[in-house]
Amino acid sequence: MSEIAIRRAEEGDIAAIVAMLADDPLGRAREDTSEPPAECYAKAFRAVDADPNQLLAVMTQDGRVVGTLQLTFIAGLSHKGATRGQIEAVRVASDRRGARLGQRMMEWAIAQCRARGCAQVQLTTDRSRADAHRFYDRLGFKPTHIGYKLGL
Amino acid sequence: MSEIAIRRAEEGDIAAIVAMLADDPLGRAREDTSEPPAECYAKAFRAVDADPNQLLAVMTQDGRVVGTLQLTFIAGLSHKGATRGQIEAVRVASDRRGARLGQRMMEWAIAQCRARGCAQVQLTTDRSRADAHRFYDRLGFKPTHIGYKLGL
Repeated sequence: MSEIAIRRAEEGDIAAIVAMLADDPLGRAREDTSEPPAECYAKAFRAVDADPNQLLAVMTQDGRVVGTLQLTFIAGLSHKGATRGQIEAVRVASDRRGARLGQRMMEWAIAQCRARGCAQVQLTTDRSRADAHRFYDRLGFKPTHIGYKLGL
Repeated sequence: MSEIAIRRAEEGDIAAIVAMLADDPLGRAREDTSEPPAECYAKAFRAVDADPNQLLAVMTQDGRVVGTLQLTFIAGLSHKGATRGQIEAVRVASDRRGARLGQRMMEWAIAQCRARGCAQVQLTTDRSRADAHRFYDRLGFKPTHIGYKLGL
């Protein structure tokens, strides 16, 4: 029996998180996997960690980091002043996929949103990620929106 | 010549913002337009206003609030530690549409994202909002993602 845990990410998890972000058809081209991790990641980690409305999480299996996701709690006036929970950068280590670890991590994230009083959970995923679409459909998410991006 | 300005929203703008959120095919069913504004909106306003990573804005024309949008600055590790600027709850007063006020407000929002060092601006819009899709296409946004929502 392996032991699974999900917890707030720490500075020492940065290399493992970046490795998962990069081990992905879309991530490969856009991340820097030099060791030790580039300063841009440490700087971003500190900004996320200092923000009470952000929660960067890792899933561990027997102490090894095997998953990550980032939660942002966004207050707003619409929907009668509802807070939204937003999930970004969901990854499971490539050698651990197919074991429902992603589902477990997402269920944890949804529970965190509920605990923070969110009325809705939202996320976007690239149109090309067909596996991800099936994954979110299975979790009960509805693909009601179009996600637009503008590079600066 | 009318005078257009865009500024951070204040507590006194809540009723005008809620009226615009509600004056919309999707918003009508989900907002509460009682006067004075319901306490849920004031509470949400205070949460947004207290968050240094949020900026709720209004556009005024000759002193009347005629537009609103909400910006959230989201730090994260992906894309080499890029900060994203997210735009939500974009509205222009129904009697002021067609005058490019929305475009002016969005250009202002994109400039705010640039000033905060964002690498990307993102937003989602309901699949049914065909006019909004043309609007974001015209502004240079790319509809690369699917936006999933889960009600809690």
